Amino acid sequence: MSVDLSKTSIRGYKSGRSFAYRALWLVVEALVMLNPVVTPYRLKRWVLRRFGARVGRGVLIKPNVHVKYPWHLVVGDNVWIGERAWIDNFVSVRIGSNAVISQGAYLCTGNHDWSDPGMGLMVKPIKIDPGAWVGAFSQIGPGVTVGTNAVVTLGSVLLKDAQPNGIYTGNPATLVGHRTIRDLPGPAGVPGREQHLGPPA
Amino acid sequence: MSVDLSKTSIRGYKSGRSFAYRALWLVVEALVMLNPVVTPYRLKRWVLRRFGARVGRGVLIKPNVHVKYPWHLVVGDNVWIGERAWIDNFVSVRIGSNAVISQGAYLCTGNHDWSDPGMGLMVKPIKIDPGAWVGAFSQIGPGVTVGTNAVVTLGSVLLKDAQPNGIYTGNPATLVGHRTIRDLPGPAGVPGREQHLGPPA
Amino acid sequence: MSVDLSKTSIRGYKSGRSFAYRALWLVVEALVMLNPVVTPYRLKRWVLRRFGARVGRGVLIKPNVHVKYPWHLVVGDNVWIGERAWIDNFVSVRIGSNAVISQGAYLCTGNHDWSDPGMGLMVKPIKIDPGAWVGAFSQIGPGVTVGTNAVVTLGSVLLKDAQPNGIYTGNPATLVGHRTIRDLPGPAGVPGREQHLGPPA
Repeated sequence: MSVDLSKTSIRGYKSGRSFAYRALWLVVEALVMLNPVVTPYRLKRWVLRRFGARVGRGVLIKPNVHVKYPWHLVVGDNVWIGERAWIDNFVSVRIGSNAVISQGAYLCTGNHDWSDPGMGLMVKPIKIDPGAWVGAFSQIGPGVTVGTNAVVTLGSVLLKDAQPNGIYTGNPATLVGHRTIRDLPGPAGVPGREQHLGPPA
Repeated sequence: MSVDLSKTSIRGYKSGRSFAYRALWLVVEALVMLNPVVTPYRLKRWVLRRFGARVGRGVLIKPNVHVKYPWHLVVGDNVWIGERAWIDNFVSVRIGSNAVISQGAYLCTGNHDWSDPGMGLMVKPIKIDPGAWVGAFSQIGPGVTVGTNAVVTLGSVLLKDAQPNGIYTGNPATLVGHRTIRDLPGPAGVPGREQHLGPPA
Repeated sequence: MSVDLSKTSIRGYKSGRSFAYRALWLVVEALVMLNPVVTPYRLKRWVLRRFGARVGRGVLIKPNVHVKYPWHLVVGDNVWIGERAWIDNFVSVRIGSNAVISQGAYLCTGNHDWSDPGMGLMVKPIKIDPGAWVGAFSQIGPGVTVGTNAVVTLGSVLLKDAQPNGIYTGNPATLVGHRTIRDLPGPAGVPGREQHLGPPA
């Protein structure tokens, strides 16, 4: 058999909102989220919530963050979302408290059934557990869970679940180490370690 | 010898259009293709054709698709080109019918001769054969052919030809499996399988 | 211990400019650098210098190049910086003469201490030595030096130093070959080899 995309199917997938509502989101997103000039974190949180996202306290959202469907987004407290990150959430993306999605990262919930001549749509949720770090320009595949405190390093492509506290590198990303977290605020003598000014602008 | 880019050469390369024409394309592309708010597929196909592309029927082009030189682009029928894909076609890029170029994918036809102190330009065409799938954020190198129905998975970097029906993963991408395509429209009982609504908005 | 980003620290990091100055840069960058329509190389060089960058002669900067802090940027002569490259320089990025940063490349100077519950900021300079080539969509990690004339190929992720003349490929990138540079301008018979028209527009 050969592929025939004129026979494709979204297999009953529903975005969950009307066409007009999604179009409105595109306009609001362009103005508030994708604007290269910085808009206030507070405004972005408010806008995401107005469009159905659950967004915790102290969530920092840098410029040019692209969210497909805010109504499928759940974000805990003190989460950082970096510049030019893309949350491509046809379905649920849940980001636990104190997780970091760094700049340029891509969270991919959509797939196609390549054994189907019509490349029918397949969607699977993504879960980023509390304290995990999705590194800059890394990519997370459909259905993947990044475990608590796990780390996906710069530019890695994670196609399978990451275990809690695992450190994942490469393409495809593999387990290369284990993260340990100090219970003290850091070694003495690190200049300015005592300042708590939030992440850099 | 050391590199001296003041002595570079484009080695007789010609873009095929005047400076003014290329500048006009940049303006039109910015307005129609790169606009974050959705413009109609029909308008994009029309604009690409007006600038010299051959574009088949039923081609879907999502927002923010970047095409360097439309006059070097040939696209078959029922092709999907995803959001933020970049067709960097100094020379010919041919995309066969029913192929998919997913979001964020990058097709690179330009190279430099690194043995040349002036890093002289080298350009090679890319061919995406019918039914192939260039996955999200994957990158295709100069001169590469992606064979019929081949698949390049999320974030993979393909530097050599992909054989027909091959599945390629990793960086550099390697053959990891073979695609088989069902001759039936899909297993019974998949909800909504009978709908033919086109790909998700 | 678990991660608690409310207790983060920038560890005494200073951007080196006031908030107002940085905000002004964002506006100027949006107008001059990130504008999808081409602005003159001369204007971009001038603007970068006005914001504190040292930029040599004959530097070509394509559209949509993103520079975090120009006052931490040093660029030699005859450097090419490709479309959509991102120099994310919290601290010094030094690009030697005749180096090339190709389209979509990402230079990452910022990191976080993942053993710190507050993911304290760590910044490390990047150095791209003369004649090196940071290929399209490749990524360079914090603290990395790309040696003289070294090459990082399409889509590679370089997390450690690259030795002079080394060719690096993959994710993570590894040494796959050695670059030799001819002392002659190239083989006879290459059409147009004698033209010196600069890189393609």
